[in-house]
Amino acid sequence: MKIGFIGLGIMGSRMAANLQKHGHSLVVFNRSREKANPLLAQGAKWADSPAALAEQVDVIFTMLAHPDAVEEAATGKEGFLSHLSPGRMWVDCSTVNPSFSKKMADVARSRDLRFLGAPVTGSKGPAAEGKLIFWVGGAASDLEACRPLLECMGSRIVHCGGPGTGTALKMVMNQLLGTFLAAFSEGLILGESLGISREVLLEALFNGPAAAPFVAVKRQRIETANYAQADFALRWLQKDLHLAAVSAYETGVAMPLTNAAKELFRLAIRDGHGDEDISAIYGYLARNRDAQSTSGSVAQ
Amino acid sequence: MKIGFIGLGIMGSRMAANLQKHGHSLVVFNRSREKANPLLAQGAKWADSPAALAEQVDVIFTMLAHPDAVEEAATGKEGFLSHLSPGRMWVDCSTVNPSFSKKMADVARSRDLRFLGAPVTGSKGPAAEGKLIFWVGGAASDLEACRPLLECMGSRIVHCGGPGTGTALKMVMNQLLGTFLAAFSEGLILGESLGISREVLLEALFNGPAAAPFVAVKRQRIETANYAQADFALRWLQKDLHLAAVSAYETGVAMPLTNAAKELFRLAIRDGHGDEDISAIYGYLARNRDAQSTSGSVAQ
Amino acid sequence: MKIGFIGLGIMGSRMAANLQKHGHSLVVFNRSREKANPLLAQGAKWADSPAALAEQVDVIFTMLAHPDAVEEAATGKEGFLSHLSPGRMWVDCSTVNPSFSKKMADVARSRDLRFLGAPVTGSKGPAAEGKLIFWVGGAASDLEACRPLLECMGSRIVHCGGPGTGTALKMVMNQLLGTFLAAFSEGLILGESLGISREVLLEALFNGPAAAPFVAVKRQRIETANYAQADFALRWLQKDLHLAAVSAYETGVAMPLTNAAKELFRLAIRDGHGDEDISAIYGYLARNRDAQSTSGSVAQ
Amino acid sequence: MKIGFIGLGIMGSRMAANLQKHGHSLVVFNRSREKANPLLAQGAKWADSPAALAEQVDVIFTMLAHPDAVEEAATGKEGFLSHLSPGRMWVDCSTVNPSFSKKMADVARSRDLRFLGAPVTGSKGPAAEGKLIFWVGGAASDLEACRPLLECMGSRIVHCGGPGTGTALKMVMNQLLGTFLAAFSEGLILGESLGISREVLLEALFNGPAAAPFVAVKRQRIETANYAQADFALRWLQKDLHLAAVSAYETGVAMPLTNAAKELFRLAIRDGHGDEDISAIYGYLARNRDAQSTSGSVAQ
Repeated sequence: MKIGFIGLGIMGSRMAANLQKHGHSLVVFNRSREKANPLLAQGAKWADSPAALAEQVDVIFTMLAHPDAVEEAATGKEGFLSHLSPGRMWVDCSTVNPSFSKKMADVARSRDLRFLGAPVTGSKGPAAEGKLIFWVGGAASDLEACRPLLECMGSRIVHCGGPGTGTALKMVMNQLLGTFLAAFSEGLILGESLGISREVLLEALFNGPAAAPFVAVKRQRIETANYAQADFALRWLQKDLHLAAVSAYETGVAMPLTNAAKELFRLAIRDGHGDEDISAIYGYLARNRDAQSTSGSVAQ
Repeated sequence: MKIGFIGLGIMGSRMAANLQKHGHSLVVFNRSREKANPLLAQGAKWADSPAALAEQVDVIFTMLAHPDAVEEAATGKEGFLSHLSPGRMWVDCSTVNPSFSKKMADVARSRDLRFLGAPVTGSKGPAAEGKLIFWVGGAASDLEACRPLLECMGSRIVHCGGPGTGTALKMVMNQLLGTFLAAFSEGLILGESLGISREVLLEALFNGPAAAPFVAVKRQRIETANYAQADFALRWLQKDLHLAAVSAYETGVAMPLTNAAKELFRLAIRDGHGDEDISAIYGYLARNRDAQSTSGSVAQ
Repeated sequence: MKIGFIGLGIMGSRMAANLQKHGHSLVVFNRSREKANPLLAQGAKWADSPAALAEQVDVIFTMLAHPDAVEEAATGKEGFLSHLSPGRMWVDCSTVNPSFSKKMADVARSRDLRFLGAPVTGSKGPAAEGKLIFWVGGAASDLEACRPLLECMGSRIVHCGGPGTGTALKMVMNQLLGTFLAAFSEGLILGESLGISREVLLEALFNGPAAAPFVAVKRQRIETANYAQADFALRWLQKDLHLAAVSAYETGVAMPLTNAAKELFRLAIRDGHGDEDISAIYGYLARNRDAQSTSGSVAQ
Repeated sequence: MKIGFIGLGIMGSRMAANLQKHGHSLVVFNRSREKANPLLAQGAKWADSPAALAEQVDVIFTMLAHPDAVEEAATGKEGFLSHLSPGRMWVDCSTVNPSFSKKMADVARSRDLRFLGAPVTGSKGPAAEGKLIFWVGGAASDLEACRPLLECMGSRIVHCGGPGTGTALKMVMNQLLGTFLAAFSEGLILGESLGISREVLLEALFNGPAAAPFVAVKRQRIETANYAQADFALRWLQKDLHLAAVSAYETGVAMPLTNAAKELFRLAIRDGHGDEDISAIYGYLARNRDAQSTSGSVAQ
């Protein structure tokens, strides 16, 4: 089985490398060719366009930054969709919005192609180690056909339901991450401002009943104000909050906290924190605070 | 050592009973006398007013519903403060705002009394079993003098810093509880509306990286839409969000998510959910949803 | 000059009738044919599809409910765009988002067609009387060519700039309407709850420094709690708030109040107010209020 | 009739001067004595404390920055209340919260004193010219007795109802001012970001249906980015939003937009805009915007 891989960024390059390590032949495409070099050195073949890639493969993986990039690669002037033979499969691992994923599923079906939306949880460490989690939306039979490939890249594969549900679950996870992290930062800063012993406060919050696993993992960054070299860049989390808000509009769900978080992260991006780690939302909220209190700490 | 106990509601009555079980003599006062009957039956003495109570005891515990009730009991017309001899101790276990607790500490100090603000974590179960957590603000030496009494009622006693810091930490914990629970409900409902398999969704959210312990404990209530017989009534959580917002104003901290949560819980109270369990915020957000979607579930 | 008109709802039917009254020949299309009957009775010609319509006209007006409907009419299976000869003009009067309008402009330009985005201000009264305001984005020369037609339907034609700017201005006007109306309702209800004389309060608010013209016009509806027979249905205003939020995301603007308003209107739709007049946001916020106050009016 | 005046800041000094110009004898007190010098030079008498002042006058005006300052002056160690003879009147012109004003009314009544809460609208210009608006809560007969004095300082005196209602109405006006100004700024910035001609945009917004009088008056400051020498300092408007939020909690009213505005103004204070004019909220929201857009203006 010949595999095409489009999108060789931080995540995609590591995922493709794991397919290669398991003995699969790859044809690859990326906007800038140099990122493909390590894969090419290990035997992958370069394609000059998504269309050219499609002529040579049985299954295509895409791992791109946003819906527009996916649409361009699939249905743009040199898009791959019209070059795939009926029955071939496309697995989109990009984090997109559910209605977009469902639209891609419809487009694929209209061409007798099989489609899985399969976004991942996990940053570059798990990507390199083949320990991602895949959240898969699509037909169960298509997932089974594709499972051996996904298992090269991930340690857990979860079937979430029909088209769009994998990306829906991924999006909800990130919506929770963004709102929890912002709300947690608000509480931590309030506690510090009220004069609670820092040691007691950090212990109570990071090990107590509020310690959601994905918040607790940010303890060291927050304690040391180290937001550089992002595990997950703040601007992409804000994008996910936006996608959640759009999906909520489409399905008629009210999300006042999610929208408040979306705007708070926007202000943080506006003031220069977009490329920092998501934990920088704490740093953004905490800045300048000493100068501006109305009446001072209760502990003086 | 003779102990006075003022405020015999769901929590106070169980706390006082534990002091009694450990052999301490109690003098008690409550707005409605009948709630004191079980304690009186076990040998406690009734006082007709906080002032009358103060004449007979070495230490006073208060466990009341809000700051105004505490102020009335302490400094009102028949308040206890002016009837306590110098050197006596007052331990306020009510959930109040930090600046109020600090003000009470100041009033007590001006009369040469000792003061601890010591709100608790834990609902009626832990209160009955003597397994509360006490978050204590005040002088370390006063806490040591009082520790044997607190250990009759709680399994963990945490010294948080100076006056007001115990109540500050308790308030921050509840601020996190309120914001997390609301944000979690938003995500859960969005996921359901997008057609994710309910089993997969609940598993991913309640056991995944977002599963803060105090959210996970609400799983059964949410799955079964059972909000009656509150462990923690929604209206009191909204009060804590309000107190956090007021403290944030006083110390100059921005809390956009906390305020958004405060208003969402207010709407839920307005529509009749105030006496339900806090998990009813899920039910409030989820109601009527099927009728109103703009474009339907991605899974159709 | 032969004119095509697509979309004969409350607004479109009245606009088309005004073109007809000024002597213009119409070809019309609507999803349900019956709405075209009054126009057909006056001599308009029916087309079985947007494509069929395009073959017969020099200029096409579209007045549809949302971007998807516009896209379907323009570029769908029986869309009109590929059936218009080069140099012909398309004027989209629908309220859409600016990036969508710009995308339509691009599609039109790629086919050598001329495009104006020209959404309107004014509800069915002004539509019937030919007193709409047109907010036009596109080339000045195209606007001049089209001006005589717009003047059949509107009393004011404002050139806002390039493609997308007309719809941008319309959207901003509605974003202001939604946020002002919600904030005004909050203040009015707070004032009532605090016991201010209703006469003094209404006078101070509806005639005072906060009396934005488009709020003041809602006084009678609010005073009499009459939200039926909407001048502007609440659900469409919520749509505009959503479009503003999406545009803000695309251009990097923070809009915390606009998003808070969007969610509040969403809750009102969820609870059954979507088809009522936008002033129903006051009724939604005011309901049940007497039962739930924490401490009562200052005036008792 | 001898008049006492406590609080000689920007507003109070001008109000007291107008009483003096109309021939009234003043006794004055202020935290820092130097601010009293112009009044003393015109014949006013200095008192060393609020208590000392109370011994010499028939009516006391207070014009102080916040509730704590009022409480200190009235009931603190050297407070005036216990030094006023029965039947004397106290007029509090400070902008406080309604429940506080009502509490002061209760304290005064318990000492057989008469009380009016009478906050003002208007900044230093109208204060100097005697053209303030007074929003009066209290007994109509007390207002009539006091009216000649108020008319020395104001051009309009509005009786709003019982104790606390004057301050309630003032607070609601400022809540509207804060929310409208923030929402207006959001819309203006969105419009600019979308490439609308600036001239068209400013005209449409500042002269159109959204042009609430108190927003329109800020046009020049916003057009020229001139926020120095505040007519109304941003931090005091944020205080009023906070007081509105607290009153809303007390009366059970939901105010999601008002709370969102409160937090936005808090962030602006945090970043150094507290002493600027309230119109600086536009400047705060607009800063850095060019660097951060996601996809650029529709007009490119």
